[in-house]
Amino acid sequence: MRTYLDCLPCFLRQALDVTRLIGADEELSERILRDVLQTASKMDYSQPPPVMGKYIHRLVRDSAQAPDPYASLKQSFNSMALRVYPELADMVRQADNPLEAAVRLAIVGNLIDFGTASGVSEEQVQREVDQALDNPFQGDVASLERAVAQADSILYLFDNAGEIAFDRLLLDLLPLERVVGVVKPSPIINDATLEDARACGITDMIPVVDTGSDAPGAVLEDCGEEFLRHYRRADLILAKGQGNYEALSHMEKNAFFLLKAKCSVVAADLGCTGGTMVLTRSGGSDS
Amino acid sequence: MRTYLDCLPCFLRQALDVTRLIGADEELSERILRDVLQTASKMDYSQPPPVMGKYIHRLVRDSAQAPDPYASLKQSFNSMALRVYPELADMVRQADNPLEAAVRLAIVGNLIDFGTASGVSEEQVQREVDQALDNPFQGDVASLERAVAQADSILYLFDNAGEIAFDRLLLDLLPLERVVGVVKPSPIINDATLEDARACGITDMIPVVDTGSDAPGAVLEDCGEEFLRHYRRADLILAKGQGNYEALSHMEKNAFFLLKAKCSVVAADLGCTGGTMVLTRSGGSDS
Repeated sequence: MRTYLDCLPCFLRQALDVTRLIGADEELSERILRDVLQTASKMDYSQPPPVMGKYIHRLVRDSAQAPDPYASLKQSFNSMALRVYPELADMVRQADNPLEAAVRLAIVGNLIDFGTASGVSEEQVQREVDQALDNPFQGDVASLERAVAQADSILYLFDNAGEIAFDRLLLDLLPLERVVGVVKPSPIINDATLEDARACGITDMIPVVDTGSDAPGAVLEDCGEEFLRHYRRADLILAKGQGNYEALSHMEKNAFFLLKAKCSVVAADLGCTGGTMVLTRSGGSDS
Repeated sequence: MRTYLDCLPCFLRQALDVTRLIGADEELSERILRDVLQTASKMDYSQPPPVMGKYIHRLVRDSAQAPDPYASLKQSFNSMALRVYPELADMVRQADNPLEAAVRLAIVGNLIDFGTASGVSEEQVQREVDQALDNPFQGDVASLERAVAQADSILYLFDNAGEIAFDRLLLDLLPLERVVGVVKPSPIINDATLEDARACGITDMIPVVDTGSDAPGAVLEDCGEEFLRHYRRADLILAKGQGNYEALSHMEKNAFFLLKAKCSVVAADLGCTGGTMVLTRSGGSDS
């Protein structure tokens, strides 16, 4: 997905959010915002938005010497998600369609995102969990089921810390011997790193590699060779979250994207209303 | 009021709103947005926000050759406001405190603002009218009453088209022989010009001059000599709307500002919650 002009105010909002989170003083905040404005004025808008997200958050980390601004938020949402996991696993087991329930709950976990909105609370996540099986959902779960059955090699691109514990519900229903997981190599917003994958038990289930890029979404031009090998080899991509959707939705690759449409730009690109839980396919044809 | 960093996303939103309103194509919209980003990156943030508002809307008018993008919206809200005026005049007459009712309704009219929000509908205005006497209001009407009684010369700075018909309710209670009204000299967003003052019957009540500036708020450095003479001479300023509050709230002048706190930055500056109807004083001391 390209960068739309509507993404521009949001870039500034993101920069403001993170300068506040790290408690930057007025002078540093102003310097960061002026830099973001300047850079956004020259950006190639045919690039996906995570390219700018990477720039903003790297700028803040470097200029404020704050290597991991979202560290404590990530830990707290990992704990929260692990705490509710047993209850969610019960919901999946008791559902009429366990795969759809797992897909829905994995998407609910995508609410734990400090890039697209100005924060989310544990209470909001709990409310969405309670409504997960009833809230608006757009997608063809049977088609995902067929694609999984036919795939020899599945690459699962994780999105955020905390959210990855919700992803376990879906992993529980996948042929794990054919799945490799992908996290970020280093802190970017609240995206999951290897540390979070360990904390949430993912590394006990599947091999986990990283994108080799600190963009908040797998922008291929920026990814490392190890990830690219896995990406090329995989015959099915399952990608979580807006960042990965923005980075990969235009690629010719057999992929399903699982995300909550949290901003109006992505909702418009997906042709749904804001807030919808979406399972959408791109690339390879259905069978 | 200075330009806060939180104003920056809003500048871009304003630019997006107006490029869409005029139906600018993607290429022109992109050029405008890049220019706004570039200019905002270098702006002196000690200046009030209307300085940037002026720049954005002048840029759009010039580069799109759209001299008055909000013309039809202004006309339609003038008509709407004139249509409801008799009913509002009844509300004022029947109120326990007619001056407070007129102040509240004049502030409700300030909702008709296409600068701060992405549009407002006639239905929203009508809903606010219905709740005008009950909704949260912050201000000391008795102090306004005393200031008016003591003033030899009152300058009434109007804000938006449509809204000025609501201002008539307050003008009806003022000593009109001592009041001069102020509009904008040329189109800027949906701010009232002399044409709107005529359409809404204001010119039949009081002399009307203009600021001599196409900023959406009376930024003194940018105003014309005629306006400045009136401003210096007046011993009481009544100023409507966020733009005038932003431009003048830090001045040493006996002034009352009447506005709806429509954005979080202005609400924070005023120390109230968003949406509050505010009558606030600056400059000269109370008596």
